[in-house]
Order: sequence, then C-alpha cells, then structure tokens
Amino acid sequence: MYKLFLYIWLCFGSLSLFGQIQVPGMPLSVAATMLNQQQAWNNGDLEGFMIGYMQSDSLLFVGGSGVTTGYNATLSRYKKGYPDRESMGHLTFTNRSWTPLCDNSALVIGAWRLNEEVGGMYSLVWRKINKEWVIVADHSSD
Amino acid sequence: MYKLFLYIWLCFGSLSLFGQIQVPGMPLSVAATMLNQQQAWNNGDLEGFMIGYMQSDSLLFVGGSGVTTGYNATLSRYKKGYPDRESMGHLTFTNRSWTPLCDNSALVIGAWRLNEEVGGMYSLVWRKINKEWVIVADHSSD
Repeated sequence: MYKLFLYIWLCFGSLSLFGQIQVPGMPLSVAATMLNQQQAWNNGDLEGFMIGYMQSDSLLFVGGSGVTTGYNATLSRYKKGYPDRESMGHLTFTNRSWTPLCDNSALVIGAWRLNEEVGGMYSLVWRKINKEWVIVADHSSD
Repeated sequence: MYKLFLYIWLCFGSLSLFGQIQVPGMPLSVAATMLNQQQAWNNGDLEGFMIGYMQSDSLLFVGGSGVTTGYNATLSRYKKGYPDRESMGHLTFTNRSWTPLCDNSALVIGAWRLNEEVGGMYSLVWRKINKEWVIVADHSSD
C-alpha cells in the first residue's frame, strides 16, 4: 500500500524533480528520500531534511570547515549555517551516479544548487540498516 | 618477507609521517599506500601518486569542477592541474577516520595540505579487489 502511494505520488506529483534525482540502479526508496529531503529544505524544515541521515553518533559530515560527527551535531551545524527560511533559499539536487559497493552499501554522487547562485558537489555513502537505506557519510563541497 | 620489509621501513624511515596517516582499524597496506602516494607526489611523480587508485574506467573523482570518471581521465586532470614539479608543492595527508562499510569496502576521511598554504578535506571510498585495497572514489575539496 505504501509503495502504491509512492508510485502514484511520483507519477502525478513530482515527475520532473524526480527525474533529476533518480539514476540507474538507485532504489526507489533512496530517490524518494532525497526528493523528500529537497522538499523539506525548500519548506524551511531542517528536521525534515535530516530524515534520510542515519540517526546515530557515527554519522559523518564533511564540509568546508572539516568533519562533523553525529546526527545532532550535523543538525546543529545546519541550523547555525541556515538560521531562517530566507537563508536556506531554494535547493535542488541533481544526481549523477549510484555505485553499489556491496549488498548493503552504495555511493551517490551528485550536484547541489542553492537559488541558481551557489552550488557544488556531494558524495553520499548510503547503507541499508534494518531494511532501510540511510546516509552514513556526506561530503558536500562548493 | 614483503611484510617484514614494510615493518622495518615503517619503524625506521617514516614513523612521524605514518602517524598522520594510520588511524584505528585501517589495514597496514592502506596506510602504506597512502604514505607512498604522499611521497610520490612530493617527488613530482604523478603516476606514482596514482598507484592506489583503481585502474579502471569506473574510478570516480569528485573535485571543484565536477566529476571525472576513469583512471586515465583522473591522471590527465592532475597533469593539467599540476604541470610541473613546482606547481605540485609539498603534500601532506592527515587521516581522521577509517569506517568499514562491509567486509570489502571502507571510507577514509582526512585532510590534505599543500605547502601549509592551501588545504581541504577528502573522503576516499576503498574497495578490496583481488585481495588488494584500492580507491574507487575520491571526493577532494578545498
């Protein structure tokens, strides 16, 4: 039932956005998670954006200022960097590749843009934990 | 015999450099590969530096200008960016973490510096292919 809902939503609601995120081999649930992340960001909802990241002290986030370790620290970093709706701007993801590393692990490479003004690349390490794909490491750069 | 050599060399030749590269859990062969890469770079030897990367058209390199795909294209990118010994400067790696993803795959996060002037972060996805650890994806950023 969940999957049927997902398909209907993908077919009628978000086809063009989905086309920028879905790449060959990528599980539908991963593409849906990234689409939800994008929409949450564009609604000013940082907690919603963080759904998709592993909720663990082991989460790794690599940005311009170095490494941030842990889900809470990563959320705090985003809140500090983007204190209000206006500063968050409009985010788009454009994925380039899904590279399986083993049955339960894969790498996503893609490009992000904010407001068509700034942008850069990301590489996301995904792991399937308890039957759910989550981001365990994110390297995002300008 | 190879391992004995490696140990002697590590003990007497490169202990301080090795200390910046070896992190808990990292196989000795991976640390030795990265130390060799650093030394090759500092000898102006880009081909030597590239030993450690998977020699395949599937190699992924993410830098400031986007994604480069393939070993040869990555080597060409380095040659274009660093056309002579002087432009290469002095490279140091400082690893932060080794994160196993599954038996044959792991993530290394660390910091690079050139001449103590410029620097940034890297995240390297390693895979064990034919009993040898190689970098299959490199995201390096300023």
